[in-house]
Amino acid sequence: MMSNGKPRVGFIGLGLMGAGMARNIARAGFPLTVYNRTRLRSEELVAEFGGVTVADSPRHAAESADVLVSIVSDVPDVEAIYLGTDGVIEAAHSGLTCVDMGTVGADCASRVAAALAKKGAEFVDAPVSGGVWGAKEGTLSIMAGGSDAAYAAALPVFEAMGKKIVHCGPVGSGQQTKLVNQIVVALNLEAVAEGLLFAQKAGLNIQTTLDAVGAGAASSWAWNTLGPRMASGDYEPGFKIAHQIKDLRLAIEAAEKAGISLRGARLVVENLQRAQEILPDGGERGTQGIIAAL
Amino acid sequence: MMSNGKPRVGFIGLGLMGAGMARNIARAGFPLTVYNRTRLRSEELVAEFGGVTVADSPRHAAESADVLVSIVSDVPDVEAIYLGTDGVIEAAHSGLTCVDMGTVGADCASRVAAALAKKGAEFVDAPVSGGVWGAKEGTLSIMAGGSDAAYAAALPVFEAMGKKIVHCGPVGSGQQTKLVNQIVVALNLEAVAEGLLFAQKAGLNIQTTLDAVGAGAASSWAWNTLGPRMASGDYEPGFKIAHQIKDLRLAIEAAEKAGISLRGARLVVENLQRAQEILPDGGERGTQGIIAAL
Repeated sequence: MMSNGKPRVGFIGLGLMGAGMARNIARAGFPLTVYNRTRLRSEELVAEFGGVTVADSPRHAAESADVLVSIVSDVPDVEAIYLGTDGVIEAAHSGLTCVDMGTVGADCASRVAAALAKKGAEFVDAPVSGGVWGAKEGTLSIMAGGSDAAYAAALPVFEAMGKKIVHCGPVGSGQQTKLVNQIVVALNLEAVAEGLLFAQKAGLNIQTTLDAVGAGAASSWAWNTLGPRMASGDYEPGFKIAHQIKDLRLAIEAAEKAGISLRGARLVVENLQRAQEILPDGGERGTQGIIAAL
Repeated sequence: MMSNGKPRVGFIGLGLMGAGMARNIARAGFPLTVYNRTRLRSEELVAEFGGVTVADSPRHAAESADVLVSIVSDVPDVEAIYLGTDGVIEAAHSGLTCVDMGTVGADCASRVAAALAKKGAEFVDAPVSGGVWGAKEGTLSIMAGGSDAAYAAALPVFEAMGKKIVHCGPVGSGQQTKLVNQIVVALNLEAVAEGLLFAQKAGLNIQTTLDAVGAGAASSWAWNTLGPRMASGDYEPGFKIAHQIKDLRLAIEAAEKAGISLRGARLVVENLQRAQEILPDGGERGTQGIIAAL
C-alpha cells in the first residue's frame, strides 16, 4: 500500500523534536498525515508542505499509514496514544509498522509491542540522540529495536531523519541503547560544567580553553556543542533539563533492577535537579544550564 | 645558535610519553641531545637516528640547546632536573627556552620559570593531551603557557610533536588548561564506564552499542578510543591510572583553593583508586581499567 513508491507515513507529536523530524519526512516526499494534541502545529505543516494532511486522532493517523512514527514526552503519553481511546491500537492492521522514537524505557516498548502484535502490527522502538538541532538538520542518531522486517520497513523513513541509524537488536534494545547514550551524555555534560567552572575560577581565557581542550583526549560532542553555550550563559534548549532528568531516572531504575549503581549518573541528576530549581522555568532550559548548579 | 636552520633541542625524560615525542623531534631533523635517568633508553635513540647525542645530566642536555624539552613524572622530578645538582639551571643562559610538558600544576611551573628568569632563560609550561598513542603518532594536543617570544621559539619543536597547539596565555596557563582537560577526561572516562556497564547488564551487543552511541550527542574521544578497549578488557596503558589520579589531585587541590568542589572529578578519583587496588599492578594499567571498580 505505497503511493509513488514511498510508504505512507503517519506522524504523532509535533513537539520540539517532532516538528523538525516531521518536516524532514515531508521534505523527503513521503505522503504524510500528522496528529498533534494542539491542532495548530499540524496546520502549520500543512501550510508549509503539499501532501500533508491533518489527523483528528492517533487512530486516524494510523488508519491509512504503512509506517506510523510517534514522539511524545513520556510513558503515559505513549500509552495513551497507542493504547487509549481513539489510539493507534484501534486502527492497527497487518502491514502497519509503528515506530516510537521517544525515550520511555524497554518495559513500555515491550507492552506496546505486545498489544500491537495481537492486531498483526509490528513495533520498533527507535529513540534518538542529537537534540533539537539534530532533529531540525536531519542528523539524528537513531537506535532501533525490532524484528528485521519491521526495521526494514521503517528504514526509509529513518533515513529522512537521521544520519547514524543502527539496528540494535529486538524490541526494547533501542531503548536500552538510548539509556546507555543518556548515561554517557549526562556524564559528558558534567565534565564540561566542572571543566569550565574550573577554567573560569583559574582566570583562563574561555575561548582559548574551549579551543585547546576540544581537540584532544577530552573532546566530546558535549564540549564542542554545549561548552560554548554554557560559557556564554545561553541556556536555549537543545535538550531540556526536565527530559534529561526523566531519562536518567529510567536509566537509574533499570540499573537498580540489574544490581548496579551508576554513581556518576546519580550525581548528574542531583545537579540537574538543583539547576531546575535555581533557574527560572528551569526544567524547560537546556541541559547546559547544569553549570548554574555547581 | 641554530644548526641548519633548526634550533638545537635538548630532551629530558624518555618515558612512555617522552620516547615517542623525542622520536618525532629526531624524525623532523632537529639536532637532538637526550638525557634519561636510565641511559639505555637514550642509547636506543642514538642507534635509531643520526644526529642524536646522549647527555650525562640535565645540565649537559641544556648546555648547547636553544630549546630544552622535559617530560618527567611528577613535581619533585621536575624540580630535580631543573633546580637540583647538575640541573638545567646550572646551564641556563640567555637564548635558552625551556619547555616542561608534564602535568605538574601552575605553582611548580611558576617556581621553575622564576628561577630560570634569573639566569636570562625563558620557560614555557606546555602539558599535552592524547596519551602514548598521540605521543607516538605526533598528534598530541599541546597547551602552552609563556611569553610570546618563548612560545614562538618553542613552536617549531611543538609542531614536530603535536597537531593542535594552543598558546593559552602566560606561564602557568598551560598547566591550568591541562587541569581543565584532565577534569573533562576523567568524567568522560566515568561516562564510558557507567554506560558500558549498563549495556553489559542489559544484555546488549557491545559492538553495536559502541557503534550506535559513538555517533551522536554521547560521542567523545573516550567513548571511541577507550570504549572498545574497556569492552574487551584491554587495559594496556594509553594513560596510566596512577598518572590520572595524580593529575586529578592537582586539579582538586587547585579547585579547593578557588572555593569550588568538583564532585564528579572526586568520584572518578575514588573509582580510579579502587581500580588501582583491585587490578594487579593497577597504577600501571590504562585508565580504562576504571570499569573494574564499578
